[in-house]
Formats: sequence, structure tokens, C-alpha cells
Amino acid sequence: MTSASPTPTSLDAVPAAVETELRSFFDVAVPAAAEIAPVVGTAAELVRDFVLQGGKRIRPVFAFAGWRCGMTESCRADADPASNVGREARDALRVGAALELVQACALIHDDIIDQSDTRRGHPTLHRVFQSRHAAASWAGDAADHGVAAAILAGDLALAWADDLVHDHRPGVAAGTVEYRALPPAVGATWAAMRTEVLGGQFLDIVNEASGDDSAAAAYRVMEFKTAAYTVARPLELGARLAGATEDLVATLRKIGHDLGIAFQLRDDQLGVFGDPERTGKPSGDDLVSGKRTALLATALRRADDSDPALGNRLRDYIGRPLDENELGAARGLLVDVGAVAEMEKQIDDLLGAALGALDTADIGADIRSELTAVAHRTAHREA
Amino acid sequence: MTSASPTPTSLDAVPAAVETELRSFFDVAVPAAAEIAPVVGTAAELVRDFVLQGGKRIRPVFAFAGWRCGMTESCRADADPASNVGREARDALRVGAALELVQACALIHDDIIDQSDTRRGHPTLHRVFQSRHAAASWAGDAADHGVAAAILAGDLALAWADDLVHDHRPGVAAGTVEYRALPPAVGATWAAMRTEVLGGQFLDIVNEASGDDSAAAAYRVMEFKTAAYTVARPLELGARLAGATEDLVATLRKIGHDLGIAFQLRDDQLGVFGDPERTGKPSGDDLVSGKRTALLATALRRADDSDPALGNRLRDYIGRPLDENELGAARGLLVDVGAVAEMEKQIDDLLGAALGALDTADIGADIRSELTAVAHRTAHREA
Repeated sequence: MTSASPTPTSLDAVPAAVETELRSFFDVAVPAAAEIAPVVGTAAELVRDFVLQGGKRIRPVFAFAGWRCGMTESCRADADPASNVGREARDALRVGAALELVQACALIHDDIIDQSDTRRGHPTLHRVFQSRHAAASWAGDAADHGVAAAILAGDLALAWADDLVHDHRPGVAAGTVEYRALPPAVGATWAAMRTEVLGGQFLDIVNEASGDDSAAAAYRVMEFKTAAYTVARPLELGARLAGATEDLVATLRKIGHDLGIAFQLRDDQLGVFGDPERTGKPSGDDLVSGKRTALLATALRRADDSDPALGNRLRDYIGRPLDENELGAARGLLVDVGAVAEMEKQIDDLLGAALGALDTADIGADIRSELTAVAHRTAHREA
Repeated sequence: MTSASPTPTSLDAVPAAVETELRSFFDVAVPAAAEIAPVVGTAAELVRDFVLQGGKRIRPVFAFAGWRCGMTESCRADADPASNVGREARDALRVGAALELVQACALIHDDIIDQSDTRRGHPTLHRVFQSRHAAASWAGDAADHGVAAAILAGDLALAWADDLVHDHRPGVAAGTVEYRALPPAVGATWAAMRTEVLGGQFLDIVNEASGDDSAAAAYRVMEFKTAAYTVARPLELGARLAGATEDLVATLRKIGHDLGIAFQLRDDQLGVFGDPERTGKPSGDDLVSGKRTALLATALRRADDSDPALGNRLRDYIGRPLDENELGAARGLLVDVGAVAEMEKQIDDLLGAALGALDTADIGADIRSELTAVAHRTAHREA
């Protein structure tokens, strides 16, 4: 149905190849929406632009890496691996592209929930719709309209994710397209992944409401909202597409879990210490927004354990605007109580476990080497 | 995977059979959500209860009717119809059940958008989450939490709809289930239907904001938000599941369009003149809420044409609370300007066209007779 993308020869080439898949989908899906009404086409274009304007494409990279691992001959459960080679590479890219559409829904709806104004340096989608309402001098409350429109835009992204993963296209006449059903094992993994990311996000807002700022709560959210959704399930989806053995799937899920937690712990460090020029987020963002991270949970526990007054000082810096001096003092506290070191050790331990498992996994030398580099970058990135 | 439901012997038996399919899905999906965290399981239970607590199951009835039409031997495009009989009945019920999950997402999110407090006599889901927040004395704004939780609950229903239609189950180990890929033509129709209902809803909120109260705008919304989504696409999904010819599909889509518009026009009449005891909605609900229906658009046009002062009198009754005298006066105006009669004539014309097409369609005598009865009920129901 879509024009074939060249198979990426390295993981670095995956983001561009996935964007080609996404564009090819939008080339059909956006005009189909526009046929309903021009304003619906405009909304579809805004979803398209949101998806294409950025992101690291980390989930598609892991999906493609999983597929490459699964293509190792000794790991394949099916009888005739060679016959699937060309076919499955396209499928792995398509699943990666579909993951980006799930992520678009998650971000669009999270931004409503968090009442965020910007995302990746652009206005969030509900603010875009709000601005369009205001510019047109329409009736009713512009902010309410923005939220309503963005709820539906996120829904569209989620519906499109499923259309894409199943290789269906709205507006394309039945029977006119080449079509490949998703292998059952991939479908079951896809189903689990969507429930996990939504469940993890739900757990996050409940923890926030109930005031559960324990490290245990933060790790539980991380496990589903980040580790499974961002690394482990994408690796598994790719491996299952290639017809990998259950042994390899189990190995990749373990690697994915460890790397996924390391990814989030690094994110937590960057959320307090990161360079705004590189992360694209305000300085000390997680402190100001009072995000319930493992770093802050660990710091509070360690501070309380050493001196309750110290814990209270730290709490005073969480969840409110901070000037440069206060931000510096808060960062100093996180270092002094040993929370930063504890997190760095955890990241190193998780990275070490993942690298060890990669070392002994029965996968091709090329993908082992590439995944090893990706693992280091995941744990030690600066943006 | 799910335990088999008995094949319904008449369309009247479809709602119960579809609820059996839904329960069988929830029996797997809700525990899978609960494994993430107990509060996620609770949210999943609320979605389940929302789906099971009511609704006419009109979309599953049309999906099953379409399947029965498609099973007429002379309408089947495939070579060996007999081999698919048992299999496809289950599939038709499963697609019907999936349609109810799409509808759950649409209602949950619409209720947020419309800021509605009740649905089918129960509190809306965002109000339920709001109440739970308040009862637990959690931190933050209870109303905001209710909206956030209900956005995610609607997302879960939409993701589950796709899991169900594709016969995937979150939490069920891959390879352990019998699995049947959705036929490509059904997948393309499913994709189109989801974009249509979301696009129709988007168009509706834009028409409201831009103040477009024309009949043309109301019909455009009806076409996608109701006619395609509620009748035409369900009939088509069922027919395609049975392997129907494109001729039959085209006939059913035309019938579905006419019946779907008649369904909505009847809904509009009930929204002003319906008996609250039977409709479950407040008296004159559409007038009070200022819903942009074809009935009100037609009445405004006819009033303006005959006397601008009359149009302004009518406008004064739209979009605000009305006492019994005012409601009576508004209803009198809708009758006096001839809008009610014009709508009744349209309903009759549409019903007549649908019945005529049913009469000559190449379908079995039993399903022709049953669909004829459903068509009458669709156009002339009182609730």
C-alpha cells in the first residue's frame, strides 16, 4: 500500500525510515479526514505536524533493534527465516511508526492533564486549538474548546496507531490494498503495551492526587509508563515480528526493563540538573513541577532519615517556582544527601546488567554492537 | 479464546449475545489492568460497568443484521460460503461488541466535552472519578482529576475496542490463543468508521464554536457522527465479515445512510417533544442545551423566512433554562412554523426509501422481514 522504504542499514537510520512510513500513512489518512470537512482535515494536519515535528523515535529504534535481534538465524522459531526477510523489515518500521502515533496520543492527552503550555518548544495542541478559537472570535470559552478539540485529536492519533499497526487505511477502498495481518503474538504484545502505558499514566495521576511520593510508587509508574512501553515492549514487538524464540523474547524483555528504568532515572537527573539548551526543558523543571520521581523520593527518604529538618527544607523546594539561588540550594541538597550518587549507581548497575545480557545473548554481532552503543547512550545521554 | 456464545436466532437476541462477548473480554482485560496496580483495576472496572450498564446496542444489531444479509448465498463473493458460517457469526458478535467499546470512548469523552453530569441516569465517568477524589480527600482539584482520569478511561475503551475487534487480549500470553485475523476489507471499513465518528464529533464542536446553526451543517454532522457510524458502517462491517459482494455492500450502505439520518431526525424530535419518563433525558433537553439539530435549524430558517421577529422569539428559547410555559411556547412555535411537519415528512421519506431498497435487495426472507421491523422502530421509536 505505502511505497517501500529502504531497509535501514543501521539503527541510526531508523528515525528517518520511520518518518517515511509516517508520511506515507498521513498522505492517505489526512485527505480522508479532510473529506469529512475542511476543519477536520485541518485537525488531522495538526496531528500530523505534531508527530513529524520531533521526538527521538526511541520506541521505533528499539522495535527495529528487536526485529534485527530476532532475525538472528538461531533465534528464529519459524522454519523458513529467509522467506520473511524483506517483508518483516517493512513491518518492523510500520510497528515503529504506529508506536509514534500511540505516543502522540499519550503526549497530547498528558499535556491536557498537566495543563502544559509548551511541548518540544511549540505550543501544546490544546493551546493551538485554543488560539485558533480566540483568533476566529468564536463563541464560548476558548480554553474549553482547546481541550475538547485536543481530546478528539489525541483519540484520532490512537485510532490511527491501530490502523497503521494493522496496515489498514481509512478512506482506502477495501480489496485494493496489499494487506498483511499482524502475527497473533505481536497483536497480544501490542494489546498489553497499550493497557500498560494507559495504566501507568493512570497510576501516576492517582499517586499525585493521593500524595504518594514514595520511591516504590515512582518505580511502579516507571515500570509501566516507561520501561515496558518505551523499551521492553518495542524490543519484544520487533523480535516477535521476526518470529523470535520465547527465549530471545524473555532476554530482550529483561534487557528492555533494565534499560527502560535506566532511561527514566537519567531523565529524572536531567529534569533537575539538565542543561535547558540541550534538554529543551526549563532549568530544574521536575523540582518546580513537583514531579514524583525516584530521585526526589530517594532524596526525601535519605534527608528524613538523616535529619527531619533537612527533609522539610528539601520539601520546601518542590512544587513551586524557584529562583537561581533556590535552585542551586535544592540541587546541592540532592547531592549532599547522597541521592544523586545513589541514582547514578543504580543507572550504572542497570546498564551493567543490560550490557551483560547483551554480551551473552544469542544475537548477531552487528546488532549486539549497535544495541550496546544505544544502551550506553540511553543511560548516559545529556538530552 | 472467549467461550462461544450461541448464535442469536433473531436480531432481538443480539444485545444479550453481544453482552456475553463483552463480559468474556472484560473477564480477561480487567484483571490484566489490575495487575498493573489495584487502582488501575478499579478504573478498568468502571469502564466495564459503564459499558454493561446500558444502551440499546443498536450498532451491534446492525452489524449482525449486515452479517445475516451477507450470508445470503447469492450475495457472497467467496467461493465456499458454507465453510465460514459458524466462524463468522462469532466474528460478527465480536465486531458488534468492539463497536460498543468505541461508543464507550465516544460517550466518556463527549461527556467531558459537554461538561455533562449524568448519562443514562448515572453520574458521568468524570464525575465518578471526581467524587472518588473528593471522598478520599486527595490533593489538588477534584474536578480536574475527574477529567484527567476520564480522558484516560476513554482512551482505554478505545484501545480495548481495537484489541477486541482484532481478537487480541492484553495479558494473554502470545501463542496460547486461537486467533483469526480480521479480513482486510473489514479492517479498512473499521478504519474509515473511526475516523468518521471522530471527525463528525470534531465538526460538531467547531460548528458550535463558530455559531453555524444551518441545516447544512447539522446534516453534515449527522452524516458522519450518526448515519455512517451508527447504521451504515455497522451494516457494512457485518456484510463484509460474511464475504458479501460489493453490490450488497453498496445497497446496505445506502439503506444505512437513510435509516441513520432518520434515526437522528427522530432523536431530534424526541430531544424537544420526548417524554422524559421514556427517553431518560430532561424535558426539552435539546432546546435548553442549544443543540444544533436539523429540527432547530429548519425551524429558524422557516421562522426567519416568514417573519424575522418570529425567528428572534424562537432564538430566545434556545440555549437557556425554560419553565413549563416557555417550553410549551417554544414547542408551539416549532409546530406552527411547520418545522415538525417538515422533519416528519423527511423521516417518512427516508424510511420509505430504506424500506423500498430492503424490498428489492437480494437478501434472505427472514432477515428482510426482521430488518424491516427494525427500520420502522428506528424511525418511529419513542425512546
